[in-house]
Amino acid sequence: MNARSSADGKRGWLSKTRLEAFSDGVFAIAITLLVLDIAIRPGGSPLDEFLSAWPSYVGYVVSFLTIGVAWIGHTALTDELDHVDPVFLRLNLLLLLVVVFLPFATTLITDAFGDREAERVAATVYGVTMLCIRLLGIALDRYSLGAGLYADRDPDVELSSFRRKDLSGVVLYVLAIIIGLVLPGIAVSIYFGITLFLVIPFRELGRLMGRRASAVRS
Amino acid sequence: MNARSSADGKRGWLSKTRLEAFSDGVFAIAITLLVLDIAIRPGGSPLDEFLSAWPSYVGYVVSFLTIGVAWIGHTALTDELDHVDPVFLRLNLLLLLVVVFLPFATTLITDAFGDREAERVAATVYGVTMLCIRLLGIALDRYSLGAGLYADRDPDVELSSFRRKDLSGVVLYVLAIIIGLVLPGIAVSIYFGITLFLVIPFRELGRLMGRRASAVRS
Amino acid sequence: MNARSSADGKRGWLSKTRLEAFSDGVFAIAITLLVLDIAIRPGGSPLDEFLSAWPSYVGYVVSFLTIGVAWIGHTALTDELDHVDPVFLRLNLLLLLVVVFLPFATTLITDAFGDREAERVAATVYGVTMLCIRLLGIALDRYSLGAGLYADRDPDVELSSFRRKDLSGVVLYVLAIIIGLVLPGIAVSIYFGITLFLVIPFRELGRLMGRRASAVRS
Amino acid sequence: MNARSSADGKRGWLSKTRLEAFSDGVFAIAITLLVLDIAIRPGGSPLDEFLSAWPSYVGYVVSFLTIGVAWIGHTALTDELDHVDPVFLRLNLLLLLVVVFLPFATTLITDAFGDREAERVAATVYGVTMLCIRLLGIALDRYSLGAGLYADRDPDVELSSFRRKDLSGVVLYVLAIIIGLVLPGIAVSIYFGITLFLVIPFRELGRLMGRRASAVRS
Repeated sequence: MNARSSADGKRGWLSKTRLEAFSDGVFAIAITLLVLDIAIRPGGSPLDEFLSAWPSYVGYVVSFLTIGVAWIGHTALTDELDHVDPVFLRLNLLLLLVVVFLPFATTLITDAFGDREAERVAATVYGVTMLCIRLLGIALDRYSLGAGLYADRDPDVELSSFRRKDLSGVVLYVLAIIIGLVLPGIAVSIYFGITLFLVIPFRELGRLMGRRASAVRS
Repeated sequence: MNARSSADGKRGWLSKTRLEAFSDGVFAIAITLLVLDIAIRPGGSPLDEFLSAWPSYVGYVVSFLTIGVAWIGHTALTDELDHVDPVFLRLNLLLLLVVVFLPFATTLITDAFGDREAERVAATVYGVTMLCIRLLGIALDRYSLGAGLYADRDPDVELSSFRRKDLSGVVLYVLAIIIGLVLPGIAVSIYFGITLFLVIPFRELGRLMGRRASAVRS
Repeated sequence: MNARSSADGKRGWLSKTRLEAFSDGVFAIAITLLVLDIAIRPGGSPLDEFLSAWPSYVGYVVSFLTIGVAWIGHTALTDELDHVDPVFLRLNLLLLLVVVFLPFATTLITDAFGDREAERVAATVYGVTMLCIRLLGIALDRYSLGAGLYADRDPDVELSSFRRKDLSGVVLYVLAIIIGLVLPGIAVSIYFGITLFLVIPFRELGRLMGRRASAVRS
Repeated sequence: MNARSSADGKRGWLSKTRLEAFSDGVFAIAITLLVLDIAIRPGGSPLDEFLSAWPSYVGYVVSFLTIGVAWIGHTALTDELDHVDPVFLRLNLLLLLVVVFLPFATTLITDAFGDREAERVAATVYGVTMLCIRLLGIALDRYSLGAGLYADRDPDVELSSFRRKDLSGVVLYVLAIIIGLVLPGIAVSIYFGITLFLVIPFRELGRLMGRRASAVRS
């Protein structure tokens, strides 16, 4: 609760409690605002209207899971920190700035549906937003390492698994952005795929299955 | 405040503090966004306009109490947990995804008022949303039991009362969804009824009355 | 952070931490959504347009301070609590339901400006909302006393000052609602007056002035 | 978590935990609502439409960083506090009232783009809002000093750097408001400049560079 409890006189050290509270708030609001982007266009029977809004629903689910995964990554990163400093606060602010932009990028995509030119613009904006989230996540991690903000590193935690996924994520996002300039639909599918890959807890599922297998054997 | 304080080196264990903060934020925002769905359609005197928006008010109250009850259930569940793990984080994310969808389902219902076909679609979407909230709540509970996330179980707490209510809830929601395909108005009344049943603290009222009765006797 | 830490085996006892976090979230969102109700109607020069929206600004300030005062009262009440129980959670949910309704009531008032009939409806809805906030605050306090939720009462804290202000508030709100049926403008002025009265920290200002006076004397 | 733990019987002392939670919530929501102000006006190709909304993006970034800097300043201030009192709560409420107004002022600016008269009104409203945020921040600091709310002052922390920046900020804002009456575009550029100046962590960058330089030398 108190900056000095963990910082005892060290200059520029700040408590991470409020950083977490503020970030949790921003993530929670950005993820919840996504529902405002679900829009049903009039025309046809009520059932047709509801079903024809499917791009809205896909956009909602993908963006929700993307922000959710970004939040999980943020949690994994700050859980490891001993304290934060003014530079970390500001890098974190930039990350939040991009996360909050995601609902707007999602609206672009769902509004563009059916207009190839608009799809191309929307897919690019969406891809660049996703790429920036990932790059700023990596920047926060690198800065924390360099500035000695981490408490004591346990390399075998969720964070490290995120770090490996991060790198493949960056390459995939760059490829998807380039593909999206020509085939926006495929780029959006790739974004969905990356998010699903990050959401599905492969390691934990493997561990659980292993545990059950050994329980059966013994 | 710190993952390691309760997790001391156990792999994959995460602090539940930020999960609770993030979830509280999402529940709080979803419940507050409901007020944006209250809309008054012009026509008639100001009093008529205000009163004729009654479906908005009913939808607001029902959805508010539904999200409120889901939040109370979430609190009861996570209060019992010792820690969380990556799978729990992701199941929780799915639960929030459906909770945040509820304000949209509410708008569908209040907009559909008077158009039987639209009412049928809206009642089904609303019912399926409510059913998913309940099913994901049960999934979180079952997973926590199986993965050993609970601290030590006291079977006689609010949670267990929720669990019993959960099962009857699932059956009732499925019935209401089927009924809603024919008689959407009755389905919506059932949703209102289930929510009221979950909101009214029967056990506690009974206990309080019992306490007063024995106070009178002694 | 943990229900059992303060509740050790006592049935039906719940931690107040998440109640506070959830309530803080709802209060914070309701108070922030008020800004969405500020609307400028086109017509005239940009300066005229901006200035002619003054009822929006007054409504924003009054509602902001009203929710702020309700939050301060909520803080003062829960600070005194040792724990909460399921009935308290539900009463609190009803209080939040009414607080979240306030931004809608504010829109009614600012939209009604200039139409006497609409002003009467809006002033009544606003007054009843404010009255309900106050009544539910009193209900929470009474229930907490009766159910033994308070830790140990210090009668000379902000809470007691709120309790006295509460009673005068109820009487004033009822009077203002009745007046508003005839003279809505005067009722709205009374609501502004009550809120200002609750916002200005008379006791503390008096204490500060007393302290300065004695400092001058000595 | 508890008012009495740090206040032990001292009248009018309140815990700062809920003040921080509520303020974090309001800052987080206000900063996130900014994305709703990004609007694309139809006309031209999808790429032209997206690019021609650049004033929206600039407004989003400037306002996001402004609220972010205000939040960092708020954190630095309350981190230093031992407790809060009713007057502080109310001054803080006024600060939040102005912070929440900023998204509206941002919409004014982005909507005014191209209409000189509207730009003048918008630049003035925006500048006065920014000035009030700064003045209320200074008022909170001065009051906390006078009322003995600070735990023990370490003059060489972020706070003091904010205090020096505060004063230059006030002078610059007043100048920019005056300039904005004639040349609104230049005033808006100044607001962007002040925010950038406050966001860039000069001291910390200097310290980091110094550390690296001495590491190279040794």
